[in-house]
Amino acid sequence: MTQFFNAFHSPIGSHSTFTLGCLEQNGGLGLELGRPAEENIYIGVETKAGGSFQALPFFQGAESESARYDHGRETDSTGEEKDGSDAAESIIKTFPLKQIKRDFALGTDTWTAGDLSFTIYSRVESAPDPDKASASSLKSVYCPSVLAELTIDNTKGKKARKAFFGYAPGHSNDATIRDGCGKGTVGIGKGQQTAIYTDSKNMIAATGFNADEILTEKIEDNYNFGLGGTGLLLASVEAGKKKTFRFAVCFFRGGIVTTGMSTSYLYYRYFKTITEVGSYTLKNFTDYRQRSKACNKLLASKKLTDDQRFQMTHAIRSYYGSSQLLDKAGKAIWVVNEGEYRMMNTFDLIVDQLFFEMKLNPWAVRNELDLFTERYSYTDKVHFPGGENIHPGGISFTHDMGQFNHFSRPKFSAYELKNLSGCFSHMTHEQLVNWILTASVYANGANDMAWLKKQLKQFKQCLRSMMNRDNPKDSERNGLMSLDSSRTGSGAEITTYDSLDTSLGQSRNNMYLAVKSWASYLAMADIFTAHNCPTEAKAANKQAKRASESILSQVKSDGTIPAVLNEDCNSLIIPAIEGLVFPYVLGDKNALKENGPYGDLIKALRKHLQAVLKKGVCLYDDGGWKLSSTADNSWMSKIYLCQFVAREILGVKTPATGKRADAAHVKWLLKPENLPFAWSDQMTSGIAKGSLYYPRGVTCILWLEE
Amino acid sequence: MTQFFNAFHSPIGSHSTFTLGCLEQNGGLGLELGRPAEENIYIGVETKAGGSFQALPFFQGAESESARYDHGRETDSTGEEKDGSDAAESIIKTFPLKQIKRDFALGTDTWTAGDLSFTIYSRVESAPDPDKASASSLKSVYCPSVLAELTIDNTKGKKARKAFFGYAPGHSNDATIRDGCGKGTVGIGKGQQTAIYTDSKNMIAATGFNADEILTEKIEDNYNFGLGGTGLLLASVEAGKKKTFRFAVCFFRGGIVTTGMSTSYLYYRYFKTITEVGSYTLKNFTDYRQRSKACNKLLASKKLTDDQRFQMTHAIRSYYGSSQLLDKAGKAIWVVNEGEYRMMNTFDLIVDQLFFEMKLNPWAVRNELDLFTERYSYTDKVHFPGGENIHPGGISFTHDMGQFNHFSRPKFSAYELKNLSGCFSHMTHEQLVNWILTASVYANGANDMAWLKKQLKQFKQCLRSMMNRDNPKDSERNGLMSLDSSRTGSGAEITTYDSLDTSLGQSRNNMYLAVKSWASYLAMADIFTAHNCPTEAKAANKQAKRASESILSQVKSDGTIPAVLNEDCNSLIIPAIEGLVFPYVLGDKNALKENGPYGDLIKALRKHLQAVLKKGVCLYDDGGWKLSSTADNSWMSKIYLCQFVAREILGVKTPATGKRADAAHVKWLLKPENLPFAWSDQMTSGIAKGSLYYPRGVTCILWLEE
Repeated sequence: MTQFFNAFHSPIGSHSTFTLGCLEQNGGLGLELGRPAEENIYIGVETKAGGSFQALPFFQGAESESARYDHGRETDSTGEEKDGSDAAESIIKTFPLKQIKRDFALGTDTWTAGDLSFTIYSRVESAPDPDKASASSLKSVYCPSVLAELTIDNTKGKKARKAFFGYAPGHSNDATIRDGCGKGTVGIGKGQQTAIYTDSKNMIAATGFNADEILTEKIEDNYNFGLGGTGLLLASVEAGKKKTFRFAVCFFRGGIVTTGMSTSYLYYRYFKTITEVGSYTLKNFTDYRQRSKACNKLLASKKLTDDQRFQMTHAIRSYYGSSQLLDKAGKAIWVVNEGEYRMMNTFDLIVDQLFFEMKLNPWAVRNELDLFTERYSYTDKVHFPGGENIHPGGISFTHDMGQFNHFSRPKFSAYELKNLSGCFSHMTHEQLVNWILTASVYANGANDMAWLKKQLKQFKQCLRSMMNRDNPKDSERNGLMSLDSSRTGSGAEITTYDSLDTSLGQSRNNMYLAVKSWASYLAMADIFTAHNCPTEAKAANKQAKRASESILSQVKSDGTIPAVLNEDCNSLIIPAIEGLVFPYVLGDKNALKENGPYGDLIKALRKHLQAVLKKGVCLYDDGGWKLSSTADNSWMSKIYLCQFVAREILGVKTPATGKRADAAHVKWLLKPENLPFAWSDQMTSGIAKGSLYYPRGVTCILWLEE
Repeated sequence: MTQFFNAFHSPIGSHSTFTLGCLEQNGGLGLELGRPAEENIYIGVETKAGGSFQALPFFQGAESESARYDHGRETDSTGEEKDGSDAAESIIKTFPLKQIKRDFALGTDTWTAGDLSFTIYSRVESAPDPDKASASSLKSVYCPSVLAELTIDNTKGKKARKAFFGYAPGHSNDATIRDGCGKGTVGIGKGQQTAIYTDSKNMIAATGFNADEILTEKIEDNYNFGLGGTGLLLASVEAGKKKTFRFAVCFFRGGIVTTGMSTSYLYYRYFKTITEVGSYTLKNFTDYRQRSKACNKLLASKKLTDDQRFQMTHAIRSYYGSSQLLDKAGKAIWVVNEGEYRMMNTFDLIVDQLFFEMKLNPWAVRNELDLFTERYSYTDKVHFPGGENIHPGGISFTHDMGQFNHFSRPKFSAYELKNLSGCFSHMTHEQLVNWILTASVYANGANDMAWLKKQLKQFKQCLRSMMNRDNPKDSERNGLMSLDSSRTGSGAEITTYDSLDTSLGQSRNNMYLAVKSWASYLAMADIFTAHNCPTEAKAANKQAKRASESILSQVKSDGTIPAVLNEDCNSLIIPAIEGLVFPYVLGDKNALKENGPYGDLIKALRKHLQAVLKKGVCLYDDGGWKLSSTADNSWMSKIYLCQFVAREILGVKTPATGKRADAAHVKWLLKPENLPFAWSDQMTSGIAKGSLYYPRGVTCILWLEE
């Protein structure tokens, strides 16, 4: 399989990435983008013979070994063809693809070819709590840059050879410029937005129309050409020498960066220009490099297969590209953007990213939850299908907090619309459940009892809200969602599987939501018991029991449970088992025991899983998982989560839940269509059709628990 | 001829424009762009029958009367097709083009069609000197907004009709948002960058995937959809009523906006967000509207023909789109960007825009000159063709100050390269002459004798520098440029006509530069005489005389003078006469008299002009001016200037210098290929091939002197 896939190399919390790895002009330095920057990246060295160059294949025309780099006819600023740049053959050839080796790890990504070696260093480390950490620690971790090193081994060379690293931000609204970041440094950049700096001795910065022209330019004065859209950092490696050059790859956006609610990046406290970012990064280069290398240990466990490690590395890197730490007049706001869609803090992503964030920065979970409570909670009424919105509802939370750096107005998401029953409808019940589960896991995992105590009132509101959505009358309740929010008008709620058919798309009576609801009731029962609220604890337990019974009442003779309970539905879904992860993470082992109070439910879910994990039902021919039997639309993040539940909680450890599935999923990620978008979530027959360049894959962090 | 051409509607000094007028998706709210924003603009009203809409034709698919507005298949955030938006016919039709009337003036641009009328108000007024003006005056003039008014006459309607104004910034990096700018206001916008606000009663803001969906949306809650890239401001006009809605069209960029040298917009002193811009604009709406209307008087003179007035209106509007007033820690910096190229303060544009700036804001000229002296002057050596750079040169100035908001390093432009003799070479001699002429015109026109006194030393350096470029030995001097700058290495200097053949492209011995040099010597002689520097005055006068004699020595029997003197050149050029404008503007009538000291030169230039202003030489078949007999490349701004010189200074008032030429040039501007780019400068057979969307056309302000 190809090694030429795009991967994120992202600073923490700066919503930026040096994306690289896919052939051609598919990578680049992206700042607040939902897709790769699509800039030509030049990493190369002069041939031993001299006069021509070999480079890694990350620029236009680099597709194959025989591909020739050809800009076509460049036009100058007057619109006329520029002398001498006629469509001649480029002097930059790509290394033969077979000679290129990649070592793709969590903190380092290394390419070697011929006498050249190039490594990008980025970090996966604990993001410190801005309310508690020292300024120096915040500055160090949130500095918006990654590192790169270029090594040229010319020990066997007979001549000095030119080495280069650079990029072509092109003629956007910002100039391609040539400026260092302090004494002894040089750099190239795009306005204040992105830049590459170096303090390696004897490096020269040059800008020009294209890489060929820069490499053949003999007059150093002309390296300053201001109209060109390409910048290179150049140096000469003498015969008999091996040299390493080091680079700070920087991103920056100053001032107020959001609307709706005005915020800046938290790093703006410490860095007022991109040159300050560059200078600080180079000064701390050795420390950063060490920390990046250390990150690889996180996935070093020999229990992981290569396929697992690859997917985990890929997914975790993608998460950071979407991460964004903002500063609202001294108050930190943690945002995870939704990949290509760039919706902010989408709640049905948070609940999945939860396991990863709890491992690295639990405070971020609290930060998200608090903003949902303060600004993005609301109270509704509810209706039976076709009925009026006359029944009391209760508290819930919005789908997201806005999109494209715009915080939506209080109490409303960017996404949800009225009077729909498909995509863009409300997710009231699901987000209610998501708040309960996320808050429980945070309080438990961080052991933050002070915070939990403050939330008790809201937990009670949440319990009431869930019960109201079950049935207005207690005697009629069955533990499932039966009423839709007045926010949907005359429509109906949907789930995070918004573009799927009814099997996973409809909230009401949904099997996937039923188990998550069961887990929510259980989590609340535990909290109420611990906080001496016996009435609420009892009610929650009763609802959990009812949910379990409702599910069990629907088990068919073949052991399957339909995707929608108590309705006419023939679909079968894997995420029926998804909600089991919560009692596990919350340490409620009793609830998961075969001989415990919910033993029948656990056994039924295992049987269901085994019954559906078959080709033609919920398995593709290649062994990849198909979340619903009736839809060709599968979410990788949810597969990872359910793989964990299947193996670790239900004990189904087979090739179908492990190696065979992983192999298929790796193959999906490496399909040609998917390569530019790094890690993507939503797969149609293994092709990413939506949720590209996405953060949610970090659910696989759970695999470390096995 | 078509009335559907793009025009700028720009606030002063904010490098932004609400460009509108060209059919289809060619206009929009552009901020720091070298081209139109290409956003769909929706201005329309419901039909009397109701249920469908008529709009001005400024959106995709609006090309012809029969064109149907069709977005094609919209996909939702999941990449799936959205229900109901299949490629159906749009409910928005354009008004039949023949029913649409446009009244295009300097401060107002009005469209009427059916019961709808739409006016954009922008201002051409004196830009106050930031060093002297009050904060309130600066805030008022430099507020980055223009106005719009939409009037719907439903006095004969039987039903209420929906009216709308909005745009589709699309899914760029910034959200399309829906937020007002204070109590009683609503608005739509793109991040913090562009926005349209209104305080008209009962207006509603709505965002959605497209205009059709917004106009058919029945649920007001859904007007808040955050994922859509289109925003409309909507209102209902009751039967029997006529209503006018008013809008502030705003632009904004906060914080540091330039690199190389850090500056903010001057308006950032007074406005910290785009909402503050909107709020202030609406508060001062009546005043702004009045001031915009008053601007029309500037071109009201009955001496102007309609063709002249059209070109002047168009060109002046374009100038403002490129204007940018920056603030470097309290010090104002006036920048005029170079249209599509966005080079900053290109000196060979400044010298032409001079006449306009002197009329409206002379301080801006001083501001530009001072920055050239402080940061963008240099000293060189010079060489004879093929010789070494061993001769003393002297002071000169760079071609520009940078590009794309990046100030180039001190002493260097973005544009100039070494070892060339064509496009991108240095313009050392021309920019030297440009400083002398611009500084003379400023000091004289503004009567700023204190400033002039401070420049005396530099004027002396300039004189020395010009003489050194003539010949190292005084005895060999002929008043022309004969040596090229060491900055060109072994190359040669070029002129502002950089993409032309030798006739205008080569500096050395160039006839166009010869007359500008003559004018420079004359201007310096006057200054030195007035400041009691007899040696310098004498030297300058001697050089002027020599230049005149050198030119006269080259007059051919047919009265023409070759484009390059003392070399083998068969080209003939109109700009031979261009330099005559300077003694005129400087009030040196004596120099221009037929019986004055340079009477022979004046007569020779008149004869030359009459000889070349013929079809097949320097006239196109349509009567348009062809600057060089040997190149199909003509600059409108220079034509305007030379038309003025021909008529007012040389007294050649014929259809060829007036009506016939104007008619041809208007036709050029309105050729289909040129319509999106508003006013463009460089024309190849009447088609704009370079210098699109350009500020330099304000040379035509001179026509007001006739």
